[in-house]
Amino acid sequence: MSASYRVDGMTCQGCARSVTKAIQAVSPTMDVAVDLEAGLVTVTGPLDGVQVKDAVEGAGFDFIGPV
Amino acid sequence: MSASYRVDGMTCQGCARSVTKAIQAVSPTMDVAVDLEAGLVTVTGPLDGVQVKDAVEGAGFDFIGPV
Repeated sequence: MSASYRVDGMTCQGCARSVTKAIQAVSPTMDVAVDLEAGLVTVTGPLDGVQVKDAVEGAGFDFIGPV
Repeated sequence: MSASYRVDGMTCQGCARSVTKAIQAVSPTMDVAVDLEAGLVTVTGPLDGVQVKDAVEGAGFDFIGPV
């Protein structure tokens, strides 16, 4: 299952890595792709949207919602 | 108790916010100050170095050690 979410506040590769690690801390097998310019996080794996939201917000970024 | 740690990989305010939130997720009352240019995180509160290290690494940054 793959889904994309709009996430605000990511401005550099450090941010992208932080979001990726936060999601993979909950589910290590999640595939996470970050598009910094578009402000999009695309995930493939077992987590649902609420779990992704919690991980993103826990890492200090603004989870806007699915796109 | 206040302590400063060298943390690599923080390059913007998004990174600084992410590190701050990750530490405060473990201990909400921790005061966290990030010096991006120096690559330093200064914390004041109850967490020990191992807990700060775990939070920083969990957020995707490289914890180097105390300074």
